[in-house]
Amino acid sequence: MLHTNFTPGPSQLYFTVADHVRYAFKEGIPSISHRSKQFELISKEATEGLKQLLGIGGDHYILFASSATEIWERLIQNVVAEKSFHFVNGSFSKKFLEIARQLNRQSEAVEVKEGEAFSESQKISEDTELIAVTHNETSTGVSLPLDFIHAFREKYPEKLIAVDAVSSLPYPAFDYTKIDSVYFSVQKAFGLPAGLGVWIINKKCVDKAEAILDAGKSIGSYHTIPSLVSMAKKHQTPETPNVLGIYLLAKVVADFNRRGIDIIRKETEYKAAILYQSLTKHQLLQPFVKDKYLQSKTVIVADCGAYTEKLSRFLSEKGMTPGDGYGSFKKSQLRFANFPAHSKEQYELLADSLDAFHG
Amino acid sequence: MLHTNFTPGPSQLYFTVADHVRYAFKEGIPSISHRSKQFELISKEATEGLKQLLGIGGDHYILFASSATEIWERLIQNVVAEKSFHFVNGSFSKKFLEIARQLNRQSEAVEVKEGEAFSESQKISEDTELIAVTHNETSTGVSLPLDFIHAFREKYPEKLIAVDAVSSLPYPAFDYTKIDSVYFSVQKAFGLPAGLGVWIINKKCVDKAEAILDAGKSIGSYHTIPSLVSMAKKHQTPETPNVLGIYLLAKVVADFNRRGIDIIRKETEYKAAILYQSLTKHQLLQPFVKDKYLQSKTVIVADCGAYTEKLSRFLSEKGMTPGDGYGSFKKSQLRFANFPAHSKEQYELLADSLDAFHG
Repeated sequence: MLHTNFTPGPSQLYFTVADHVRYAFKEGIPSISHRSKQFELISKEATEGLKQLLGIGGDHYILFASSATEIWERLIQNVVAEKSFHFVNGSFSKKFLEIARQLNRQSEAVEVKEGEAFSESQKISEDTELIAVTHNETSTGVSLPLDFIHAFREKYPEKLIAVDAVSSLPYPAFDYTKIDSVYFSVQKAFGLPAGLGVWIINKKCVDKAEAILDAGKSIGSYHTIPSLVSMAKKHQTPETPNVLGIYLLAKVVADFNRRGIDIIRKETEYKAAILYQSLTKHQLLQPFVKDKYLQSKTVIVADCGAYTEKLSRFLSEKGMTPGDGYGSFKKSQLRFANFPAHSKEQYELLADSLDAFHG
Repeated sequence: MLHTNFTPGPSQLYFTVADHVRYAFKEGIPSISHRSKQFELISKEATEGLKQLLGIGGDHYILFASSATEIWERLIQNVVAEKSFHFVNGSFSKKFLEIARQLNRQSEAVEVKEGEAFSESQKISEDTELIAVTHNETSTGVSLPLDFIHAFREKYPEKLIAVDAVSSLPYPAFDYTKIDSVYFSVQKAFGLPAGLGVWIINKKCVDKAEAILDAGKSIGSYHTIPSLVSMAKKHQTPETPNVLGIYLLAKVVADFNRRGIDIIRKETEYKAAILYQSLTKHQLLQPFVKDKYLQSKTVIVADCGAYTEKLSRFLSEKGMTPGDGYGSFKKSQLRFANFPAHSKEQYELLADSLDAFHG
């Protein structure tokens, strides 16, 4: 029995991926040159398809890195000379802060307990260059409201705003005029094999990187923003990239566009609603995130307490693999990814199974 | 007609890759967690298989990066505080030097014309920390003799020695006790889809990275040597890696081990010999590298002058795609990869076709 994989990433593959891979091998795609016209067309298909899917205007660049972890590093190297400010509410937002400090930046942060909200009136130092916020904390299932993120632009018009959407895009309908950089990795909600990070930036990020470089500070080498952007204008990359990964992204994004982003968003909301309902009314389980306003639609975390292992086994016997709780919650929580690869039918079966679980 | 791809990279896929991919999808490999036991076993199979194939002793670490270009950057960040020395004889050795300078190191270099040898008595500054040498210049088809590389250890026992073997491994039989770091990318002689770099280092590199870090200098963040090594000890990686790429590497390395490294090396030499013979006796063509001692066995470059385009078309009509000449040689040379994916029969057909080409 091939299980439905509800772990938040690498997660369930989108159902078209195996066919796209078969076709890619038939056509010799994994062996084409990354300097060929054929590659440029694939790369263009991926980036233009993403702009259509996400509703991104023409003044943003879409760049390829090898992971979202790499993008954390490149962001700090390229747009932060001295200081970034990080909203930390879980393991992944914290890792980004740690990377900034490993790169010897004087970064600051506000940290709240897992599952809780940030204050709307959080003070950010005058000399902060970048505000880093995690739209969806994969470790806890807290999703920050879009209003909270979009409000930074008016409050801090001079600062750069970077949004980690690793485990939420394509679901959130960001206003890209209020964000300078957003990024994700393909093995989560795009249902693709791991090995590719997608980094969206605007002109303000390019200008900042060039200013830091002009001041004589290194911003890295092959994966600097100026280097990535100058190659992206030709639909190429500085190094030999994960060509097959970019091809598969182009194809799955085209599939998503055919299905329509509105339908994907509505289905995501429907699936989230039935799972939260099952958890809320359950005798033994409950949603970890109590505040409805913060409950993630794409990574749903269940407090299972003493029943964690038993529930995990119960679901596994029915062909469903839940994700373990993260870090200190490993023994007391289960996490459920709700991505386009997870069908309504699979989610209905999951919710019904939870209803039928009596410990 | 699916062509035999003789470009030096991305190159022809090894003939078992498509089957390994099919099996991987059947088993759900692209969706497994990079923190699972299953991934650790795959990663271990890849690194232990490589140690067996290449004859690497137990005191080296095998690390995964996303490309050889990334490894250039990580090498400089991690083991060069101030100064590296680069042997430059083509575009790729030059790119490594450029990366060192972009990282604000005071790097030095000796540069010789394409196709020519370095002096055995080259002076290297006392304060050089790393000697960087390219075993096989993919742009020109010059391969440095192993004796030249192995001699550094005795002359410079204190310095680190890094060897770019991007387009030669697994062919060269390096003495790994005389090299501190060697690296390659999988889309060349391993016949795999692009998107993975393999970085072999010894304890001396780890010690140097830790010393630089202890001195308060940043050595990067998630892909530092200490971070990569501490995860590699558990057969894991700091970030979500190209899991499918590592799986395919493990499988192809096992295929290579079953075939045997001696047979792979002998076949490489046989194929190189018949192609160089065709070029040498040809009326219109000749090997670009004249000095037999420097002629690469794995990337064979032909001077085709005015016949370049015509020969490329002639071969293409027979189902063979040669690589273009690199950079300024684009219109006057063709390059032929000689990797394990290229069979003796394909090479015999190539050599016969050259013999039959009369302009």
